[in-house]
Amino acid sequence: MLLYVDAQYVSPYAMSVFVALKEKGIAFDMQTVDLEAGGQHAPGFAAQSSTQRVPTLVDGDLCLTESSAITEYLDEVYPGTPLYPYEPKLKARARQVQAWLRSDLLPIRQERSSLVVFYGPSEAPLSAAAQAAANKLFAAAQALLAEDAEHLCGTWSLADVDLAMMLHRLILNGDPVPPRLRAYAERQWQHPAVQAWVRRERPPL
Amino acid sequence: MLLYVDAQYVSPYAMSVFVALKEKGIAFDMQTVDLEAGGQHAPGFAAQSSTQRVPTLVDGDLCLTESSAITEYLDEVYPGTPLYPYEPKLKARARQVQAWLRSDLLPIRQERSSLVVFYGPSEAPLSAAAQAAANKLFAAAQALLAEDAEHLCGTWSLADVDLAMMLHRLILNGDPVPPRLRAYAERQWQHPAVQAWVRRERPPL
Ligand SMILES: [Ca+2]
Ligand SMILES: [Ca+2]
Ligand SMILES: [Ca+2]
Ligand SMILES: [Ca+2]
Repeated sequence: MLLYVDAQYVSPYAMSVFVALKEKGIAFDMQTVDLEAGGQHAPGFAAQSSTQRVPTLVDGDLCLTESSAITEYLDEVYPGTPLYPYEPKLKARARQVQAWLRSDLLPIRQERSSLVVFYGPSEAPLSAAAQAAANKLFAAAQALLAEDAEHLCGTWSLADVDLAMMLHRLILNGDPVPPRLRAYAERQWQHPAVQAWVRRERPPL
Repeated sequence: MLLYVDAQYVSPYAMSVFVALKEKGIAFDMQTVDLEAGGQHAPGFAAQSSTQRVPTLVDGDLCLTESSAITEYLDEVYPGTPLYPYEPKLKARARQVQAWLRSDLLPIRQERSSLVVFYGPSEAPLSAAAQAAANKLFAAAQALLAEDAEHLCGTWSLADVDLAMMLHRLILNGDPVPPRLRAYAERQWQHPAVQAWVRRERPPL
């Protein structure tokens, strides 16, 4: 199996698929695509990746993009650690969180890009729009995460990885995060497969 | 069951859930949320909808947001027309298309908002960025849709509804669309549940 990721190893969506493959115990190679140089639009890659994005997974004759589609596929087809809850309402919650984190909270994703997480903090304070997005993130996460719960959906799932990543955009930049969410995110960050991604060597920017 | 949608009935994501409920033969009520007036942040709605977005579905004690999470849940739990293919690789393709249309092609979504689809065309030509996004949309759709295929994933799925909606942002505005894609999208647009959404009475803007 072959996973295409960004050349800086900072894509949260590449990280999510990386964690999924590790948890499934699937052997895979990684190749990097230099997004800054437009590598995602290069003819060779674009012929494989119909949406010209990373992550892209190649599994035999299947070439798949969009991280949540990839990880749902892996969970359906491969044995190993479940990546999503089995119970439909809990699984729905995991999917809700994944879809939400990919389509909302844009000011956080812009002002606290994943470079902040893996290469070091930004100097700029959050804009009013980003602070409003952070407040919305905190309210939703606190509503979804039961008091004292270790996981969003009963058992560990990829939604925990993705939510921990979103919270770490703020935590690692020194922005205030409610203590309960901070403790949750820092526990999730210690997950061995997450740490395998976090600690990898990265090229200079 | 209760579905919250936007007050203008223009959200492509609300439309996708509406079609899903119709195809499943589920009886449901609709309530509108006035997004222009900030109704999604009103305390009553926000208490139910943790991410403060439409569509939000209430099914007994479950309150769920994010259209693709909602429709996956409906497909898992309710009988009726399948909303997604059964075969994992085809299902993966449907999920890829849904996730992609929700997270990419932003210039099209901005310059050809869904108001263009349901209230009438925009006067402004596409910017260079939006034309580039349109070209990417056409390339990917042509790669994913086999020659002469009626559907993206073997049989009808919600991915067809969502892709037809994205293409109609351009078609209904008079922007050029490759004939094969245009014919595909216009066929999909005739789907009875899609037409039930398209033809509903809308309040003045
Ligand atoms: Ca992705
Ligand atoms: Ca660089
Ligand atoms: Ca949605
Ligand atoms: Ca209005």
